[in-house]
Amino acid sequence: MIKVGLLGGTGYTGVELLRLLIGHPDVDLRCVTSRSEVGTAVADHFPSLRGRVSLEFVDPESAPLAECDVVFSATPNGVAMNHAPALLDAGVCLIDLAADFRLKDPGSWAQWYGRPHACPELLNEAIYGLPEVNRDRIRGARLIANPGCYPTAVLLGLLPLLEAGLVDPKTLIADAKSGVSGAGRKESLTTQFSEASDSLKAYAVQGHRHLPEIKQVLEAACGASVGLTFVPHLTPMIRGIHATLYGRLLEDADVQELFAARYADEPFVDVLPAGSHPDTRSVRGANVCRIACHRPQGGDTVVVLAVEDNLVKGAAGQAVQNMNIACGLAETAGLDAVALLP
Amino acid sequence: MIKVGLLGGTGYTGVELLRLLIGHPDVDLRCVTSRSEVGTAVADHFPSLRGRVSLEFVDPESAPLAECDVVFSATPNGVAMNHAPALLDAGVCLIDLAADFRLKDPGSWAQWYGRPHACPELLNEAIYGLPEVNRDRIRGARLIANPGCYPTAVLLGLLPLLEAGLVDPKTLIADAKSGVSGAGRKESLTTQFSEASDSLKAYAVQGHRHLPEIKQVLEAACGASVGLTFVPHLTPMIRGIHATLYGRLLEDADVQELFAARYADEPFVDVLPAGSHPDTRSVRGANVCRIACHRPQGGDTVVVLAVEDNLVKGAAGQAVQNMNIACGLAETAGLDAVALLP
Amino acid sequence: MIKVGLLGGTGYTGVELLRLLIGHPDVDLRCVTSRSEVGTAVADHFPSLRGRVSLEFVDPESAPLAECDVVFSATPNGVAMNHAPALLDAGVCLIDLAADFRLKDPGSWAQWYGRPHACPELLNEAIYGLPEVNRDRIRGARLIANPGCYPTAVLLGLLPLLEAGLVDPKTLIADAKSGVSGAGRKESLTTQFSEASDSLKAYAVQGHRHLPEIKQVLEAACGASVGLTFVPHLTPMIRGIHATLYGRLLEDADVQELFAARYADEPFVDVLPAGSHPDTRSVRGANVCRIACHRPQGGDTVVVLAVEDNLVKGAAGQAVQNMNIACGLAETAGLDAVALLP
Amino acid sequence: MIKVGLLGGTGYTGVELLRLLIGHPDVDLRCVTSRSEVGTAVADHFPSLRGRVSLEFVDPESAPLAECDVVFSATPNGVAMNHAPALLDAGVCLIDLAADFRLKDPGSWAQWYGRPHACPELLNEAIYGLPEVNRDRIRGARLIANPGCYPTAVLLGLLPLLEAGLVDPKTLIADAKSGVSGAGRKESLTTQFSEASDSLKAYAVQGHRHLPEIKQVLEAACGASVGLTFVPHLTPMIRGIHATLYGRLLEDADVQELFAARYADEPFVDVLPAGSHPDTRSVRGANVCRIACHRPQGGDTVVVLAVEDNLVKGAAGQAVQNMNIACGLAETAGLDAVALLP
Repeated sequence: MIKVGLLGGTGYTGVELLRLLIGHPDVDLRCVTSRSEVGTAVADHFPSLRGRVSLEFVDPESAPLAECDVVFSATPNGVAMNHAPALLDAGVCLIDLAADFRLKDPGSWAQWYGRPHACPELLNEAIYGLPEVNRDRIRGARLIANPGCYPTAVLLGLLPLLEAGLVDPKTLIADAKSGVSGAGRKESLTTQFSEASDSLKAYAVQGHRHLPEIKQVLEAACGASVGLTFVPHLTPMIRGIHATLYGRLLEDADVQELFAARYADEPFVDVLPAGSHPDTRSVRGANVCRIACHRPQGGDTVVVLAVEDNLVKGAAGQAVQNMNIACGLAETAGLDAVALLP
Repeated sequence: MIKVGLLGGTGYTGVELLRLLIGHPDVDLRCVTSRSEVGTAVADHFPSLRGRVSLEFVDPESAPLAECDVVFSATPNGVAMNHAPALLDAGVCLIDLAADFRLKDPGSWAQWYGRPHACPELLNEAIYGLPEVNRDRIRGARLIANPGCYPTAVLLGLLPLLEAGLVDPKTLIADAKSGVSGAGRKESLTTQFSEASDSLKAYAVQGHRHLPEIKQVLEAACGASVGLTFVPHLTPMIRGIHATLYGRLLEDADVQELFAARYADEPFVDVLPAGSHPDTRSVRGANVCRIACHRPQGGDTVVVLAVEDNLVKGAAGQAVQNMNIACGLAETAGLDAVALLP
Repeated sequence: MIKVGLLGGTGYTGVELLRLLIGHPDVDLRCVTSRSEVGTAVADHFPSLRGRVSLEFVDPESAPLAECDVVFSATPNGVAMNHAPALLDAGVCLIDLAADFRLKDPGSWAQWYGRPHACPELLNEAIYGLPEVNRDRIRGARLIANPGCYPTAVLLGLLPLLEAGLVDPKTLIADAKSGVSGAGRKESLTTQFSEASDSLKAYAVQGHRHLPEIKQVLEAACGASVGLTFVPHLTPMIRGIHATLYGRLLEDADVQELFAARYADEPFVDVLPAGSHPDTRSVRGANVCRIACHRPQGGDTVVVLAVEDNLVKGAAGQAVQNMNIACGLAETAGLDAVALLP
Repeated sequence: MIKVGLLGGTGYTGVELLRLLIGHPDVDLRCVTSRSEVGTAVADHFPSLRGRVSLEFVDPESAPLAECDVVFSATPNGVAMNHAPALLDAGVCLIDLAADFRLKDPGSWAQWYGRPHACPELLNEAIYGLPEVNRDRIRGARLIANPGCYPTAVLLGLLPLLEAGLVDPKTLIADAKSGVSGAGRKESLTTQFSEASDSLKAYAVQGHRHLPEIKQVLEAACGASVGLTFVPHLTPMIRGIHATLYGRLLEDADVQELFAARYADEPFVDVLPAGSHPDTRSVRGANVCRIACHRPQGGDTVVVLAVEDNLVKGAAGQAVQNMNIACGLAETAGLDAVALLP
């Protein structure tokens, strides 16, 4: 059994990790931390966990995190980096679901996240936890940067095209639509039901923090500078990301076959038949990214549709997948839940 | 392994049964029938099942239902009763998720369902599959009438009071709110998104088909005639039933303790601490009914709040629970999924 | 033209008042106050008002409220009572949309609102602004307590029965379902989209602040002590209240005819044909309460369904109606918008 | 007063037209037709209209349409073209909200709509009713093709760029998100609440009927062949379209100033300040298209965000605007309702 600690368990990625870890056959959940909820039963905080989790929240300073094999950090940006050096010294494998270790360049990190990085020396060691790209490097890794929700869908949808050199890397467009849970579990006016329901809006068109993360991986994949216009949208659903991706083909190609071959052995990427239109609910609660490829009117624009549950393949599920790989477990262990539909 | 067939697999209770049966450790799913979708891959019909179900829909007449140990019928009302005699003769255990075997009186059945019953001689044999009432009789039963979604929540919330003789059986009120999936997966105008979203309405105030079913069980529990006003409401959520139940106390009593004791050993009924207000999402996708008891202002009106997922504890989950009991499996087998929250 | 000021214009009742006042033929909107948004253009705060309102928010201390004929207060509870004496001295008619002047008993007010009342001597002068009860007293009134959203629907649905002495006043039940905007425009966790969407819950079963307000009016109507169980529910819609009301008939009566006669001359109460089930969207954005009466199975329980838009007939629309009556305008002036459906 | 008839009044554009026409100061509504609802009171069909419309549905064959000054056709595609010749002969101005007269080429129409056109000789006479392009030609027109909902938002967002020759017409992308009411009021499985709620999907990526209509107008504006990738999405809201438009700048330009100047005199196009992100609810129920322009990271991709209510500026509101222009009324008459927010 893998001894697991959860650093920061009061948010949406926290409760989703708990849901998955409870059902994981190889996990022994040791502690869940929270500064604000010390002493509260986790199952009182999240009634969905009643009868399934008997732990109370403990303070991160006194939690037995160093005794764990794996610690997931589901805290806001900027917290995990303060815990990372000590945890790594203690031999713990740290999987950060926030952004602290996603960028390689400390300067870029400081620019996008508004403060200097606390341990820039670890940025190079951190493995970007997208198994479809870095599976070999995740094995045995001790520091894993779990990808952002948008980047997971955008990258899985664009990577085959860029790896194969089929599309112009300078004119990529990612029009992404996210459910509201992507904004996290916090008091906020713009994500109030009465503000966000029955409405839709773009946001952060001038530049979203997931943009440098996406470009970093795409540029590594194609070995060239990438021009990407990324426009996220807030949409009235709880979970789900739908990335609609546009690229200009440089040569004729069987895009459907390209994607099918690229992901043939991937347990959690599902390439749909040609002509499909995946809906986000088809992955609600499931650790899978479903992808469909189109060439409208047979032209030179390829349109890729990629859907995921932002809290599962876009966060907690992918984190568990990374743990499975890092610890030598079956990659699919604990991740076999079927999507909840309707 | 239990050989299982599914009669009628294209609706919401059908896909929910499939979701649960796929994850059940003791089930061997043999066939899924549909008259309209013969030859279609089940996973093409329900993309959530891609990669998890390899069966195609087969015609009910040619399906190997008689070779199964258990057949679930997830068809519209009036279908299962035409299959029941032959299946029972073949030694199959039939669990009907529709209403064909819920009422004991053929005359009442004919009145509420608008046609004569096809096999009234089986009505007495059929066990009403509410394990919290009939567990012993479900063991080894060959014909189980799975309760309706409203009745499950209303009954679990009212039974302790009536069994104990604590409330006036003549003045009960059940104000129930249901998600739209309770109306089934069918083309209909009133359940269109643009009709049912961002709105709320009562319906069938003059008399809903679940009323006689509820009264039948309540009257058996208290040994007296029951006066129940049952008002269902259509509410803009996909899943979930919230029953708000009102009774007049005949004597002073510790209602909280009553409920706690009544359901102490029940794996799928969760009595919340005094003063709680359960939300339906706390049971989304989970086979559990959560109940809270109140006596507003300490008066003689008791208010019971009971929530369930209408497709799980209110339908498919309870059906699997019934199979587990009937077949001597662990009652919780395949039913340990945690609610999806948020 | 009536000179109108708005005290507290950043919330939902504020923006709804602005929507209605903009289209009112007899209103000259002079100022809109906000402590937090001084200097911000109202139309920047509420983009729906772009091009229609040119005012900026002004500080309540410096706003020309005393020069207005009518001031609406759309502030949180406890603010209007601090402004009332000065405004009344200045000859202004004050219409408070919060709860400051709804209860007659200062002790009860202090108990339910958690602080002593600032001007208890005004409680008796204040007219409870339910035109269907107090129209004559609203004419020329200088202090109007606009009813709460729940009370408006519950009272309009119960008053005819109590006025006629037809139901037992001791065993009334009001099961009310509200859209989320009833909670106001503020940062809050429980009303986040990801918390409140696709779910439903009861709240405040032990006692909601609208309970004493409802009882006060009902008791005045029937001249007896009233026993009312009031259970509000939070439902996943933006606007709308659906009150499902239960009473026990003391004698046989034609309830449909009773309601039809009681509201025959009311411009904003619409009694539906027998057997109807109003949905809340049928009044979305419109100043009307639609009511349907039922006697399920012909028994002695009467069920009344009353729907309203909580922000219109339940708040801002009723406030404008009160202004119209108080100032001698046509009662329907500015209130003729048709509900937005779908 | 303008005598107005409505051909086909049972759908969403029909009820929205009725809402607007009821409040129009210059309209005398004479008849509303429906084949299926002959004899039903319009207000029984749409409870939102109770007390406001006293007409019954009449059969289109016997309706006094020829005596009207203006007839709106809110029927499915393919109906208005059968009525057009007779109505025009009778001197009626026909405004078709469906697609019968939007395309100039009968062959293209037959290809996209699956049947030959009934009166191809009228296609050239028909004026495409986008006032921001064709205002002068709408004046006095007798046959007006009201634009589709998607085309209105896409065209208003792209036209300034193409008219000015600022973007490459070969690489345009329109990623559009629509509320479900755009699919019309009809029984359908994919638009059921339980199918469409809390989910999002693209559809018709291979080619949507609004594509040729958009290209026709864009090509007329820029005098060149246009390459447009148009991807519509079904999103879980009742009303609203959000078009996210991408173009490649051919030269440096002040896009904000371009849009501000282009629409300076337009009563129903609102160009937001630079950096804005309009949400669809800001136009809910209002006849306005709000537009914001962006150049992410200062690059050569221009992103235009355009929102409208698909039933108002995208359908019924624009139709009334066209009537106002055609008949010489004030263009804004009857169209001054403020958006319903929240």
